[in-house]
Amino acid sequence: MQKIEPISDFDRITCMAAISLKTHGFRAKCLQRLVRLDLPVPTTVAVPASTVRQIATGHAVDCEAILAHFGPTPLVSVRPSPENPDWGGPATVLNIGMNAARHAALARSHGEEAANAIYLGFIQSYAIHVARLDPEMFDTTGASGEALRAALHAWSEEMDEPFPQDPARQLAEVLRSMARAWEGTTARLLRQAKGAAEDARLGLVVQEMAQDLGQGISGSGVIQFVDPATGGPQVTGRFFNQSGGRHRKAETLYLTRDPRGPSLEDRAPEIFAALCRHGSVCRARLREEMQIEFTIEDSQLAVLDAVRVQRSSRAGLRIAVALAEDQVITRAEALLRVEPRALSELLHPQVDPRGKRDRFVRGIPASPGAAVGRIVFSSQAAQASAARGEPCILVRRETSPEDIRGMNCAAGVLTERGGVTSHAAVIARGLGLPCVVGASDMRLDARDKRLVAPDGRIFTEGDIITVDGTAGEALAGAAAMLSPALDGCFRKLLSWADEMRDIGVRANADTPAEALVAREFEAQGIGLCRTEHMFFTDDRLVVMREMIFADSATDRAAALARLLPMQRADFVQLFEIMQGHPVCIRLLDPPLHEFLPHSREGMLELAEALDRPLSEVMRRVEAMAEFNPMLGMRGVRLGIALPEIYDMQAQAIFEATLEVARRGDPVVPEIMIPLVSARREVELVKTRIDAVAAAVHTKFGRDFAYRLGVMVETPRAALRAGEIAQHAAFLSFGTNDLTQMTYGLSRDDAGRFMNTYVQSGVFPEDPFHILDVDGVGELLLIGAERGRRTRPDLVVSICGEHGGDPESIEFCRKAGFDYVSCSPYRVPLARLAAAHLAIRERMAAKPH
Amino acid sequence: MQKIEPISDFDRITCMAAISLKTHGFRAKCLQRLVRLDLPVPTTVAVPASTVRQIATGHAVDCEAILAHFGPTPLVSVRPSPENPDWGGPATVLNIGMNAARHAALARSHGEEAANAIYLGFIQSYAIHVARLDPEMFDTTGASGEALRAALHAWSEEMDEPFPQDPARQLAEVLRSMARAWEGTTARLLRQAKGAAEDARLGLVVQEMAQDLGQGISGSGVIQFVDPATGGPQVTGRFFNQSGGRHRKAETLYLTRDPRGPSLEDRAPEIFAALCRHGSVCRARLREEMQIEFTIEDSQLAVLDAVRVQRSSRAGLRIAVALAEDQVITRAEALLRVEPRALSELLHPQVDPRGKRDRFVRGIPASPGAAVGRIVFSSQAAQASAARGEPCILVRRETSPEDIRGMNCAAGVLTERGGVTSHAAVIARGLGLPCVVGASDMRLDARDKRLVAPDGRIFTEGDIITVDGTAGEALAGAAAMLSPALDGCFRKLLSWADEMRDIGVRANADTPAEALVAREFEAQGIGLCRTEHMFFTDDRLVVMREMIFADSATDRAAALARLLPMQRADFVQLFEIMQGHPVCIRLLDPPLHEFLPHSREGMLELAEALDRPLSEVMRRVEAMAEFNPMLGMRGVRLGIALPEIYDMQAQAIFEATLEVARRGDPVVPEIMIPLVSARREVELVKTRIDAVAAAVHTKFGRDFAYRLGVMVETPRAALRAGEIAQHAAFLSFGTNDLTQMTYGLSRDDAGRFMNTYVQSGVFPEDPFHILDVDGVGELLLIGAERGRRTRPDLVVSICGEHGGDPESIEFCRKAGFDYVSCSPYRVPLARLAAAHLAIRERMAAKPH
Repeated sequence: MQKIEPISDFDRITCMAAISLKTHGFRAKCLQRLVRLDLPVPTTVAVPASTVRQIATGHAVDCEAILAHFGPTPLVSVRPSPENPDWGGPATVLNIGMNAARHAALARSHGEEAANAIYLGFIQSYAIHVARLDPEMFDTTGASGEALRAALHAWSEEMDEPFPQDPARQLAEVLRSMARAWEGTTARLLRQAKGAAEDARLGLVVQEMAQDLGQGISGSGVIQFVDPATGGPQVTGRFFNQSGGRHRKAETLYLTRDPRGPSLEDRAPEIFAALCRHGSVCRARLREEMQIEFTIEDSQLAVLDAVRVQRSSRAGLRIAVALAEDQVITRAEALLRVEPRALSELLHPQVDPRGKRDRFVRGIPASPGAAVGRIVFSSQAAQASAARGEPCILVRRETSPEDIRGMNCAAGVLTERGGVTSHAAVIARGLGLPCVVGASDMRLDARDKRLVAPDGRIFTEGDIITVDGTAGEALAGAAAMLSPALDGCFRKLLSWADEMRDIGVRANADTPAEALVAREFEAQGIGLCRTEHMFFTDDRLVVMREMIFADSATDRAAALARLLPMQRADFVQLFEIMQGHPVCIRLLDPPLHEFLPHSREGMLELAEALDRPLSEVMRRVEAMAEFNPMLGMRGVRLGIALPEIYDMQAQAIFEATLEVARRGDPVVPEIMIPLVSARREVELVKTRIDAVAAAVHTKFGRDFAYRLGVMVETPRAALRAGEIAQHAAFLSFGTNDLTQMTYGLSRDDAGRFMNTYVQSGVFPEDPFHILDVDGVGELLLIGAERGRRTRPDLVVSICGEHGGDPESIEFCRKAGFDYVSCSPYRVPLARLAAAHLAIRERMAAKPH
Repeated sequence: MQKIEPISDFDRITCMAAISLKTHGFRAKCLQRLVRLDLPVPTTVAVPASTVRQIATGHAVDCEAILAHFGPTPLVSVRPSPENPDWGGPATVLNIGMNAARHAALARSHGEEAANAIYLGFIQSYAIHVARLDPEMFDTTGASGEALRAALHAWSEEMDEPFPQDPARQLAEVLRSMARAWEGTTARLLRQAKGAAEDARLGLVVQEMAQDLGQGISGSGVIQFVDPATGGPQVTGRFFNQSGGRHRKAETLYLTRDPRGPSLEDRAPEIFAALCRHGSVCRARLREEMQIEFTIEDSQLAVLDAVRVQRSSRAGLRIAVALAEDQVITRAEALLRVEPRALSELLHPQVDPRGKRDRFVRGIPASPGAAVGRIVFSSQAAQASAARGEPCILVRRETSPEDIRGMNCAAGVLTERGGVTSHAAVIARGLGLPCVVGASDMRLDARDKRLVAPDGRIFTEGDIITVDGTAGEALAGAAAMLSPALDGCFRKLLSWADEMRDIGVRANADTPAEALVAREFEAQGIGLCRTEHMFFTDDRLVVMREMIFADSATDRAAALARLLPMQRADFVQLFEIMQGHPVCIRLLDPPLHEFLPHSREGMLELAEALDRPLSEVMRRVEAMAEFNPMLGMRGVRLGIALPEIYDMQAQAIFEATLEVARRGDPVVPEIMIPLVSARREVELVKTRIDAVAAAVHTKFGRDFAYRLGVMVETPRAALRAGEIAQHAAFLSFGTNDLTQMTYGLSRDDAGRFMNTYVQSGVFPEDPFHILDVDGVGELLLIGAERGRRTRPDLVVSICGEHGGDPESIEFCRKAGFDYVSCSPYRVPLARLAAAHLAIRERMAAKPH
């Protein structure tokens, strides 16, 4: 067998070395930048990812050649350098090169105890991470000569050989173990959860140890210049004086002057000033807030590393805004540095501290914000609940990757087990979901679907609870909530987004409360106001039912006349809140039987309220039942069959328009016809609504404008958009229903198998969650294109729940849609996502 | 005011006159043809439709000029001549020109009584049809001078003037009254029901009266040479000797020699021979079986008119075939002369005379054939019933045009009132629906939805009855039925159709009985075999439910193993019946809850059968309920979630294939995956079915072929047909579901408003009845085009209920589909319709 030459593909990091993020990882790249900025970086060698990969598969690397860079008695550290710092990597190993000879030399120069501590630390680290020995065997206190001998003995007992003395062999083993650790299943899953690709690789950096053992100020520390929680300016970090001998009690210094104790700023003002200078250079030249890792050896500063400051979403936003305001980065860059989905974390409501708190269990606050919902005990139930539009709280012993879909559907998460870095906590933070973990005092019985609180109270599936992820508590019932406070940075960033973006963003809002949120988040109007919710309050429901049970058009008209002022008041309120921004009102959509009671008690009540025999009520309720309500007598079909309903709604809209306009706000209401499948439907409804408008005009003697459009929810409406647009000023795609019909798939019923379908890759994604670009998307393109061919000024938009999704926004923008409409809380996300798209397009268009 | 010149736009019919069907109507055109054939036609003047229209609007026509063609003492008839004889027209008026002078002359030449009879007849006819006087006033018996004087007196009493003596005035009034009658509402509705356009016009012919009053053989008659019921050769008609004087008892002669009495053939053999010659000339030269109207005046034959022989559908078919066999017309012409929809009348089953007949009421046999169905009392209920796929009998007091849609959906019609020409009767014959009218002994209470038989039995909505339209009786329950006998002509015509057509025709057949009908009607295979019906028999349902309730894959497999041999036997039977013709089997499609009981009793039974607690059965049945079953867990979704079911079906198909092949018939089964919406669904199912095929191959050691395809029922499958075709050998469009999803409209629920929708023109037609070419049709085109781009040899077809509809066949043929599949009874219709399309296309391509 031919001897294979050891690999010698690695580079000393210098200004000129060919180091790239892709080949050598983030840390190597960053260190080269520090070198270029003239920061005092110790000698460093970068081992590229390709080499590390070869090491993992059994190839040897020429460690002698690496160590040649570090002088005759090398002492080095090895740190991981993946492409993205979030992808983790094996633990750093320090002081490679320690051996008996070096120990003796250190003992002479820095004393026995320090030398013992360093050698012992290396042996422990090597034994645990490289040789994978039992940590307990090396768990000693103190740094006595005896402890050191015991560790060396334990090693040779365990390994049948003395502790390796050759620095090159030590380095080779460390590199091999780190390379292999990267390939482990757990590590792979963890980084893939953070978005790493299947074949993501690891680079490594070998760096000269800066000995933090000198006389005077000597030690190691980290420093950063912003608060990681808020992003505001503040020096934070730590410095351990005399930390080199770990087993000796090191002295912790504050970084800045502090009444509580000694500080680096006091002890070594010039070093502190140098650190601040370095920080400032990094911020300006690396264009980012960096955390600097440093050592001081006999008052000599060495910068070992600098990493991007870890930050909360809130801090990330503030840092980006501050960098842009200091003109370190452009506004466009600031926008791109904030992930749209991260915004949702900032938008979560909190439990109102003034309200009553009925806490039933405490746990660990794992993801901030609070949420109210019904208890569900499985991811499947969470999805079913989401399908019904009911917020739910997912309660689990602990979560696993199989629960991600369920968590996606939940308003909040509560687990019995786990800590701040448990699966549930990590994922919940990623999703911006309020989450409490480790609520170990409660007992969970998933089989019987019961949760027993420490005080014995029992909660079952469907019970309403509140998860307070900020306080780490779960409360019984629906706690009073406070809307999130949006600070100036948030508003500033989004105002920049508005300057950049080129597609409109509206909100879906049915109620004044939702409309207020929409305005708070600066939606450019309401893109979908569903009127049916307005009829579900008790007082109106009775009149609504009277209307439904009317035997003649006259009786129906009488009931509708009573609904008219209520409906008008709804619209007056909405128009006033929206202050002249457009409000797109969808005429009544659901099948009328949704307004009827389905229990015997409910029917009895209705019979009494209507003064009709129960048998009649039961018969009529039964007669109205439908096999497939989704495909039944609803939407415009109601408008054709019982045109008086739409007449009343149109009259209410027009009268509200005049009423609000009189007080000053100009209103141009938009009226949207749901579930259209044929041109003639639009024509018939339009004729009547135009007549209502004329009647209102005559009655009040004042002019007003309005726009009539169509909600495109059936494949046929998309295909026939050309002729439908003859009678429509706008088309808004209701992608929820359109997805249902394009797939022949009811969202209410799909929960049962959607999990399996997505897991086995039948659908790449849940099409109710991510817009199906291939199928539904083609219908959107066809509809928009044909509609605009008929009417070039046709306003085209999307108002399904996909409207707030960045991928869908991208799709709609490419297709030249005028706006997207999404739930109010997603408006900021949509504004930012839209800005990202415009910026990225401009960047792609011009060479860097 | 300027005097307007009377119109003189009319033509004497000669060989050279410019007479056309369009301008002068069928009768004028036909008479010209007879003139050209040298038949002894009396002088005739054709008044074109344009002139008649002017007359109707008040213009005068130059009657003097018309009468100038008829000598100094004209005596003429006026007959209607619309473009199409089926469109009706006003009644013929005879003997215009009769007046006192003419009466005196006739009395001298033919005797007082004959003269009286003729004059009296004219006065009556003129008074009733022209002056619109009460017929009773002119209702006399005998032709005495007194009766004549009374009639003249009644006239002058009523009209304040003596009976008009001027022939020109008489003619003008007759023409005016006939022109106006054509414009009447009733007349217009009647002819529009027969397909006349809104602006269909009437021509008139004025013809010299051939006096049938002479000595010897004198009289009038009609003769034709085929049996109007069967179309077989047979001289039929009548001759009234001495018929000119109507009030005198005329002598009726048989036409051919007859033992029962004197015949024209005996009395005037040379005239009879001339008639036969004329008939033969007409058949050969007019290329049609004609009924000849003739008079004989003193042994002089005059041919007054010849019209197309009225015929039943059966006779029409036989005549067309006979003309083609005699090479009078081409086979293509023979095919075009038979309307595809007329065939369905020939295909109706009859009540088996050997069976039990529980007649509950007698009526008038109005449309032949028999049908079994559930009673419905309204058109709406009929449509709902059709939507559920349940045959129904529409029971009405009488029908009106609003009922046409309901009749279209009914299997048969029973009315309390009306005669053979009532609305119900006419429409039912048109639709080929068995119909009994005038069942006046029953009492109908449409409000309470009850039918009370003469014997007191009460039938309510949903009760099953049989309508025997051939016998004119309604029977309680489902009578035993006989399939229609298809004679040689029928088969011959369809064999010609098969030679001409260029698109395949298969049948949808789920059961051996249906497959037998499909073969009887020479379908080229089964295009859709729905397997779910196979599991609804009692013995299988229990096993099916066991399978559904199985807690584990093992239990499920055990139940499926019991279903396997039953399912295999189904396919063996089908394959054997189809004798090597392709059979396309759709894998299980409906949601599993359709197999579960829904009543408490049913669930109790099931609990006993499965030996499980009732509560569990109820819970699981409830848990399987779906909000929108149409869009739920069905079709390929079942195949993905519970793949064992499709495995079992595939195994049954393959084993049956081998079993039947062993006995000699080669079988290449086609397996169709329902409700596909994504490529990957097909891929997953295909992988498993290929594996099953491999296993069966290994087990039996014998080769077999099969084809796997996709039923395109979701809009997405049509849009993504390109990638779906990667794994499919064929695509078959299930237009029922595809229509539901394209419109977002459930057929089960649409019944409530479809009537309104079609009547108010929202939809031009019920899209479940006539293929929606614009919307659903576009998806068909997209799917076919994209599928074939991927796989040029892809077999494309349609298997929804639209498959048997001539318009849909036309659409599919244009789109290059390989075949259509329709219900077995529509196969002949589809074969003929397809031939029509091919022939018409060839005719349009080449100039005549």
